[in-house]
Amino acid sequence: VLIIGERINSTRGKIAEAIEKRDASFIQKEAKMQVEAGSDYIDVNTGALIEKESEGLAWLVETVQQVIDKPLCIDSSNSEAIARALKLHKGKCMINSITAEKKRFNSFLPLLKEHDCSVVALCADDSGIPATAEGRVEIASQIIEDLIAEGIALADIYIDPIILPISTEPKVGVVALDTIEQVKKKYPGVHTICGLSNISFGLPLRKLINQVFLIMAMQKGLDAAIIDPTYKHFLANIIAAETLLGKDEYSVNYINAYREGKLEIGG
Amino acid sequence: VLIIGERINSTRGKIAEAIEKRDASFIQKEAKMQVEAGSDYIDVNTGALIEKESEGLAWLVETVQQVIDKPLCIDSSNSEAIARALKLHKGKCMINSITAEKKRFNSFLPLLKEHDCSVVALCADDSGIPATAEGRVEIASQIIEDLIAEGIALADIYIDPIILPISTEPKVGVVALDTIEQVKKKYPGVHTICGLSNISFGLPLRKLINQVFLIMAMQKGLDAAIIDPTYKHFLANIIAAETLLGKDEYSVNYINAYREGKLEIGG
Repeated sequence: VLIIGERINSTRGKIAEAIEKRDASFIQKEAKMQVEAGSDYIDVNTGALIEKESEGLAWLVETVQQVIDKPLCIDSSNSEAIARALKLHKGKCMINSITAEKKRFNSFLPLLKEHDCSVVALCADDSGIPATAEGRVEIASQIIEDLIAEGIALADIYIDPIILPISTEPKVGVVALDTIEQVKKKYPGVHTICGLSNISFGLPLRKLINQVFLIMAMQKGLDAAIIDPTYKHFLANIIAAETLLGKDEYSVNYINAYREGKLEIGG
Repeated sequence: VLIIGERINSTRGKIAEAIEKRDASFIQKEAKMQVEAGSDYIDVNTGALIEKESEGLAWLVETVQQVIDKPLCIDSSNSEAIARALKLHKGKCMINSITAEKKRFNSFLPLLKEHDCSVVALCADDSGIPATAEGRVEIASQIIEDLIAEGIALADIYIDPIILPISTEPKVGVVALDTIEQVKKKYPGVHTICGLSNISFGLPLRKLINQVFLIMAMQKGLDAAIIDPTYKHFLANIIAAETLLGKDEYSVNYINAYREGKLEIGG
């Protein structure tokens, strides 16, 4: 599974402060730490800065790319902020995210056509987020068909089933898991992604819930996870899950990870 | 998921020694510890004692039932040992296990008809263990049909897909998981069970593999797991998994378990 490091997000107080102060070394340390922990992409999000979002995002793209080689996942619902960041980003990034909402979809589409990038698509439209997996798959299908018609490659689309808090409605976990499974079945070449942490909103020991849900999502065919990769349990579980799902001949990856100390999670 | 506590097994040196010495207090402590940790059944196995198996098993049944109220899972491939243990067991126990091997099936059948008990059935026959889920489901179907024809209730049958070491063949995990899913789909009233620990045979940090596999099996519909319940990670993961699978309205079980300190697994 691809790992998208989620730590550089302005909803975290220390990150917002570092962006505000243009503290490049703090941000760069966060980026390097996440790459060392196994991230394939580094997510950057300045949504909480509101009117300073676009400027902050541009600064983050340049600041982070000065010190790491991994691509960024540029995380904003604001197409102007995305456009500015895309001009600065070197290499092929991931855009996070579009929806089937008409205004949002239409504002992002020219950017996706102009730049070589992949894109996260949330299963929501102008009516909101469907309560059922079937409803979400319908939205995913519409987005996929529309993007393909515009020349976007299927493999560059990452469908996000949308994770809602399990504490408010016990079915939201199964709905998201079933959406992943059904989308992968209907479009074998498409990718799936999710931000995990919302699932545990409002509950104690959130990482316990998050890590169990990640294993379940991987079993359904999840291709990419937006997580805090510095939490070692995630990586250990991911490696064990990939071995158990038949992707590790003679358990070589698992044994190597053990020798490198990546599986030391106590207990 | 039902928890079958696996610790009282003569393959463990200290257990074999305690049985040999008829050290009732050691065995009773092991039984109580497992009940306190959440076991629904206590497995008792004396297979490693060979010619003393039957005598040892009978002693275990009486010794364990003196101190706990939970039923036992009487674990032997020897029908004489099972017959003797069944006469001593108070209440409805679980027999572990039959297969579709003709001799074994026929030697256990009269016992199952005579006593009110549930039974674990392994997906193996006289040709061995099929490499595919389809082959295992076929054996499970044959056992289920044969038992039902003899008057055994569907709900008293626990199908075990048979867990083999992932280190020797990367597909064995998926084959076992698919067997659970397909058996549950074909016979909605039947139960499924598995002994987890074989999956990690030969690998380091076996409990990491075991706990990830347990979550995957629960997602496929596993009804009972033969585990060491004193390893707190198992219980924490089970509670989180049940919450995520939609079986915990408003996450009440999860929050209560947290308050009772059951989820404290570090990390």
